[in-house]
Amino acid sequence: MRPQDIIAKKRDGGELTADEIAAFIDGVCDDSWADYQVSALVMAMFIRGLSEAEGEHLVRSMLYSGEVLDFSDIDAPKADKHSTGGVGDKTSLIIAPLVASCGVAVPMISGRGLGHTGGTLDKLESIPGYNVKLSTDEFRGLIKRCGFAMSGQTADIAPADRKLYALRDATATVPYIPLIVASIMSKKLAEGIDALVLDVKTGSGAFMPKLDDSLTLAEALVRTGQNFGVRAEAVITDMSQPLGRFVGNALEVYECIRILKGEADDSWADTRELSLELSARLLVLAGVSVNVEDARGLADSKLTDGAAFEKFRENVQCQGGDPSVCDDPEKLFDPAIEKFDVLADAEGYVTAIDTLAIGNAVCEIGGGRTKADDSVDHAVGYESLSRLGDNVANGSPLGILHCRTLEKADSIAVRVKNAYTIGEVRPSGTPLIRQIVSPSTDGSD
Amino acid sequence: MRPQDIIAKKRDGGELTADEIAAFIDGVCDDSWADYQVSALVMAMFIRGLSEAEGEHLVRSMLYSGEVLDFSDIDAPKADKHSTGGVGDKTSLIIAPLVASCGVAVPMISGRGLGHTGGTLDKLESIPGYNVKLSTDEFRGLIKRCGFAMSGQTADIAPADRKLYALRDATATVPYIPLIVASIMSKKLAEGIDALVLDVKTGSGAFMPKLDDSLTLAEALVRTGQNFGVRAEAVITDMSQPLGRFVGNALEVYECIRILKGEADDSWADTRELSLELSARLLVLAGVSVNVEDARGLADSKLTDGAAFEKFRENVQCQGGDPSVCDDPEKLFDPAIEKFDVLADAEGYVTAIDTLAIGNAVCEIGGGRTKADDSVDHAVGYESLSRLGDNVANGSPLGILHCRTLEKADSIAVRVKNAYTIGEVRPSGTPLIRQIVSPSTDGSD
Repeated sequence: MRPQDIIAKKRDGGELTADEIAAFIDGVCDDSWADYQVSALVMAMFIRGLSEAEGEHLVRSMLYSGEVLDFSDIDAPKADKHSTGGVGDKTSLIIAPLVASCGVAVPMISGRGLGHTGGTLDKLESIPGYNVKLSTDEFRGLIKRCGFAMSGQTADIAPADRKLYALRDATATVPYIPLIVASIMSKKLAEGIDALVLDVKTGSGAFMPKLDDSLTLAEALVRTGQNFGVRAEAVITDMSQPLGRFVGNALEVYECIRILKGEADDSWADTRELSLELSARLLVLAGVSVNVEDARGLADSKLTDGAAFEKFRENVQCQGGDPSVCDDPEKLFDPAIEKFDVLADAEGYVTAIDTLAIGNAVCEIGGGRTKADDSVDHAVGYESLSRLGDNVANGSPLGILHCRTLEKADSIAVRVKNAYTIGEVRPSGTPLIRQIVSPSTDGSD
Repeated sequence: MRPQDIIAKKRDGGELTADEIAAFIDGVCDDSWADYQVSALVMAMFIRGLSEAEGEHLVRSMLYSGEVLDFSDIDAPKADKHSTGGVGDKTSLIIAPLVASCGVAVPMISGRGLGHTGGTLDKLESIPGYNVKLSTDEFRGLIKRCGFAMSGQTADIAPADRKLYALRDATATVPYIPLIVASIMSKKLAEGIDALVLDVKTGSGAFMPKLDDSLTLAEALVRTGQNFGVRAEAVITDMSQPLGRFVGNALEVYECIRILKGEADDSWADTRELSLELSARLLVLAGVSVNVEDARGLADSKLTDGAAFEKFRENVQCQGGDPSVCDDPEKLFDPAIEKFDVLADAEGYVTAIDTLAIGNAVCEIGGGRTKADDSVDHAVGYESLSRLGDNVANGSPLGILHCRTLEKADSIAVRVKNAYTIGEVRPSGTPLIRQIVSPSTDGSD
């Protein structure tokens, strides 16, 4: 099959067969398709659309383009969580040890941050010595020993996705649901898991800000999990403001360790709540608990009694990190960092937050990447002080920028301030958990 | 302007501005757009479509991506002919000297063959020593001295087109009229001409076999010429059988020289007729003749009195070719070539010819290219003996393959034989000239 013929078929709106999609993905992996042929077909897929069958062929071809891990020698149920990404979205660092402390094995393969969203690997690397480049054998060994491991995608896992994603990013073909689903699920299904909970963000800081789009994505993700024999559930969660108090790699690890240590603070109550909810859903999917209420009780107790914290500390030690940051998380703060207050210039209620703008600001002061090979400053970030519905005084701090230097802090602070809409009427609150999409109800409730 | 933003706009069906299209073509030329970004946008253009305004922006950007020749120091009108390509389509070699012998300057920039269609440059290189790689100065000097010159596209002429065409060929985005128009016209308008006649082929050997498509293309080409101040006319001509007797580089030059020498033969009467028609149209467009009838009379006299032949011989000498092939065109036949008869296996009338299959057969025995960097065997080709409507006996020759070796000749002859449909009823003839598309009538007649 010549690439041109497959491209022409989709160009003219035809439905590609499993063999044609397999030939495409093979061509991506063995470089027999040129990048410009790949991007031409992806654009044709984007505009002409993919049927449900084509979407499933694509997931299957991408999944089997690489190694599919097999943890059948581990008795415990295997489960993982995936988030579509947000600002201050740090729950993986809590969920993995928490669920592992309940007897579930968590083979968590994560990514790096790009654009306004952070990445779990970057966060973990804030811990001195922490190694996220585990070989498949190290990964497997650690899951057996510690119950969970957190690593980057190896060259063997869904190699087609890495190349496709880079091309899609450069050719304006990212925001199309069947392509997003194939990208996410080909990696997650390769983890050899039994259960998967998906945190699909919605709101101003989400990849797909509109609730309808988030719902469509959630349904497609859950359906795909089901089709491939993985129990999956999606939770659509609010991203109309940063999650928790901190945005930025080391700052977010700090917040997670404080939560794992049971140190309550209202400013990160939503991080704790979302971690509990997602963990509970995962415990039910994994068959550990019979219902969400029981599961929440179990998870809460593991947070409270320090079991989840001990599991995290054990993992840090096993992955080469300095465990003393767990005991003294203040060590994560870089004393050389300059703090710069972002001040309200009006009095009233915070009625809306452009969370994307905050994510982009953190990226710009060095906390994230605009290109895949940019380096990241782990210490910088943003401390979110005023939340939606808060009453603020003129001149009171909305948040604090943690900058490497004060150069440009002024202009970035203005942009962050402008991300806040201050109005006279207190807005009605938006719940953190917007909707649950389960295979059984298929999101139609 | 980021490539992604321009791509996304067309992806979503937006109309690109002149600046956006200019940024795209600049990016193609200076490599600031990656090939995969170029091909993604071209696919989006193909599927979403380009408006007339976008098409014109594209022509303009591609035209001014390179050098636009200026022959204002030559008093004679400047004119050229372009063909959309066919099998045995060799009229350029007659039209250029014929029109030049009537006092029109012809700065003819031609291409090489690809696939089933031949290329003027390959044909000219059948003449020992003939140089088609003229510098701009040599090209200009020769037009002044000899009245016409035939050369390949220099790196300075419409450089965006070369790169775009190669990408389109590999990504199934060739057959879209606004892209075809931009490719043709950006090169032709760069020749600094006043008048252009376009030979748009239709039928089984044409790039666009359907008359409707050929008409649409012809109208778009003529309109574009007009918009850029060039008097243009298109002639839609029949390509449902090979033009003239010979297909193949040296063989076609042979046919042209015989016609230029006034040596009549029924088997190449259509080559002579089409050359006269296109030349006459060009003479009127160039202002040399007041109407087509007068122009035909003038052109015919230049063929008959040997003036066109002398002009061709002069050009061959000026471009480094061996002029003795003009005096003795039999020299163009390579005595080492093997001839293999293609025999009819039924009795009846030739009712249809798959001309594309014949072009592909010649390509396969070495007379053409499947990839741009293939080499070409100038001596091989096909001699077309039976024409549409001819009555053939079972076992009589339909044509003769001129092969380098007899290896594979058998199987290729079968395919050529199968290109002929033999039926019991004599078909009604198709005229050589199907339709004239002039700016004034805009092809609506």
